[in-house]
Amino acid sequence: MPDRYALVLAGGRGERFWPWSRPERPKQLLPLGRGGRSLLGATIDRALRVVPAERILVLTAHDLVATVRRECPAGVEVIGEPAARNTAPAIALAALIVRARSPRASFAVLPSDHLVDDVDAFAVDLERGFAAAEHDPVLVTFGIRPSGPDTNFGYIRRGERVADRLFRVAAFTEKPRREVAESWLASGDHFWNAGIFVWGAETFLRALQAARPALHEGVAALAAAIGTPDFEALLTRRFPALESISVDYAVLEQAPNVLVLEAAFDWDDLGSWGAWARRQPRDARGNVVVGDALAVDCDRCVVVGEGGTAAALGLADMVVVHVGGATLSCRMDQTEQVRRVSEALRTRETR
Amino acid sequence: MPDRYALVLAGGRGERFWPWSRPERPKQLLPLGRGGRSLLGATIDRALRVVPAERILVLTAHDLVATVRRECPAGVEVIGEPAARNTAPAIALAALIVRARSPRASFAVLPSDHLVDDVDAFAVDLERGFAAAEHDPVLVTFGIRPSGPDTNFGYIRRGERVADRLFRVAAFTEKPRREVAESWLASGDHFWNAGIFVWGAETFLRALQAARPALHEGVAALAAAIGTPDFEALLTRRFPALESISVDYAVLEQAPNVLVLEAAFDWDDLGSWGAWARRQPRDARGNVVVGDALAVDCDRCVVVGEGGTAAALGLADMVVVHVGGATLSCRMDQTEQVRRVSEALRTRETR
Repeated sequence: MPDRYALVLAGGRGERFWPWSRPERPKQLLPLGRGGRSLLGATIDRALRVVPAERILVLTAHDLVATVRRECPAGVEVIGEPAARNTAPAIALAALIVRARSPRASFAVLPSDHLVDDVDAFAVDLERGFAAAEHDPVLVTFGIRPSGPDTNFGYIRRGERVADRLFRVAAFTEKPRREVAESWLASGDHFWNAGIFVWGAETFLRALQAARPALHEGVAALAAAIGTPDFEALLTRRFPALESISVDYAVLEQAPNVLVLEAAFDWDDLGSWGAWARRQPRDARGNVVVGDALAVDCDRCVVVGEGGTAAALGLADMVVVHVGGATLSCRMDQTEQVRRVSEALRTRETR
Repeated sequence: MPDRYALVLAGGRGERFWPWSRPERPKQLLPLGRGGRSLLGATIDRALRVVPAERILVLTAHDLVATVRRECPAGVEVIGEPAARNTAPAIALAALIVRARSPRASFAVLPSDHLVDDVDAFAVDLERGFAAAEHDPVLVTFGIRPSGPDTNFGYIRRGERVADRLFRVAAFTEKPRREVAESWLASGDHFWNAGIFVWGAETFLRALQAARPALHEGVAALAAAIGTPDFEALLTRRFPALESISVDYAVLEQAPNVLVLEAAFDWDDLGSWGAWARRQPRDARGNVVVGDALAVDCDRCVVVGEGGTAAALGLADMVVVHVGGATLSCRMDQTEQVRRVSEALRTRETR
């Protein structure tokens, strides 16, 4: 069997979980997984079902390396990105590293801040992805069957069927408007783009070269230094100069050889307090009360107290979160907007 | 001029301002007064307009003595109550102390957690109260002309007019139902009972003896020890055994010689976050934003951050308070209920 690797992307800041998430403890490090496991830890557990620890690579922000390393078993390599440059440069760097170790290797790309409960089905699908990517020079994406007309995801429209649950990709799309998302849901031929991919390192680098030659050239300049003492210094100098762009936009939307595997596993991106709350146990009045928290005469509220007491009084459909030195209060139907608070705080700090 | 004293009652816990107020920093110590002065400090400032510091006595909880003393100028005597016993035992104790210093003295009773802006009018009225209490053996209460049909106050119904703004009391009443409060507001002959009184020490003790002989006897047992080294030990032993009862119920509702002086000064008991907020400056959308706080897309909210960041997102008519290790979120029209949170927390602690 050819060499299989996994790249775990752990560079996100997860601002939509403010104040639980902070720059120094982003969403993937929060205990949002089953049994209070971090999403990153759970992602690595899933990867370990298919590849050994020594072939797992984690990319994260340079200031998070030490924290991330504590979540990883021995053998897993953690690399810090000197600057956030979105997914394309990170994946290209990983492709170089993987190819340097074994020229014919394939690797899976796994976001670290999503929830998957059915790890068996996930492992089976990931192996199917590897098999497909080893059989042909294709880029395999994973599509999630939509459970609603969500406007927070990019979508993948499937084309010709290649095998069971495996299709050519007809088109990638940006986040749709509500009516469009509803028509796609009805059509049945659109998947959510989960940001999970499998491909050969060489296949990916060729696709990048064809679609984004300047970015490919910028990354390739690092190749000779991989495994040498110069690598980190070179990475620090060159990486921040790379184009900041998503792999979807830089490569997948351009490449002709993209497949989508319809996932048999459950998936939730836990994109907000509301999404997280929908999975939590509730009290008799529908409240999710976690930690040092109190819901007095409340209905269907989320009240979280960590490092202090959170009290909600006489509220309905609200989120009240006290974490350490900060508090958030918003309506449940506005948890998708929490990023606006993080942004406002940043603006205030730089004023 | 006969000797005039002032008793400042500073034993309250002010649970309706949780989490700003805590057992160790109750409402009267919060910076709720003009220019951020504590209500207690402002109360003492007002008393100093009429009596010298050496004749001001402050009664507070024993664990608050040191904190309260820091708010008081030199000369003011601060006494700790070994246990909370409501207003009647505290006032009776003060009457004993005052009478021991000068048998014919009168004293004013001043709650420490109310707001009065017009200190000149207050001083004039207080002096009128003293004059009345010195002229006849009467108990003088202060009545506030209601600004609305408030159901959170006891009311005083005025009787026969004695002098300008001075009346006999026809009746004291408990907190009324809404419709009753409305009819009283319309009648114009009911005042709010502000808990401010002036009387001769001897007059008060006689009224107590007539109305509540057992309580009088219990307090009087302390008299011989006043000014001796034994006093504190005796107080600690005897005070907690006294009946816990308000002066209104124990004395005023029974006594025949009670007058009410219609206050010419403004008065606000700042009984809740909502009452406090109505006096604060607001932003263009009507929000009161204080300290390390952020109101994103909010209308008419109160957002307070102290020792941490409080953020409200997309809310209307809400209170969000982050103070140190705790957070409260409730609707503006429920701030009168905040005490329920304090109670629930106490219940939880003793479980």
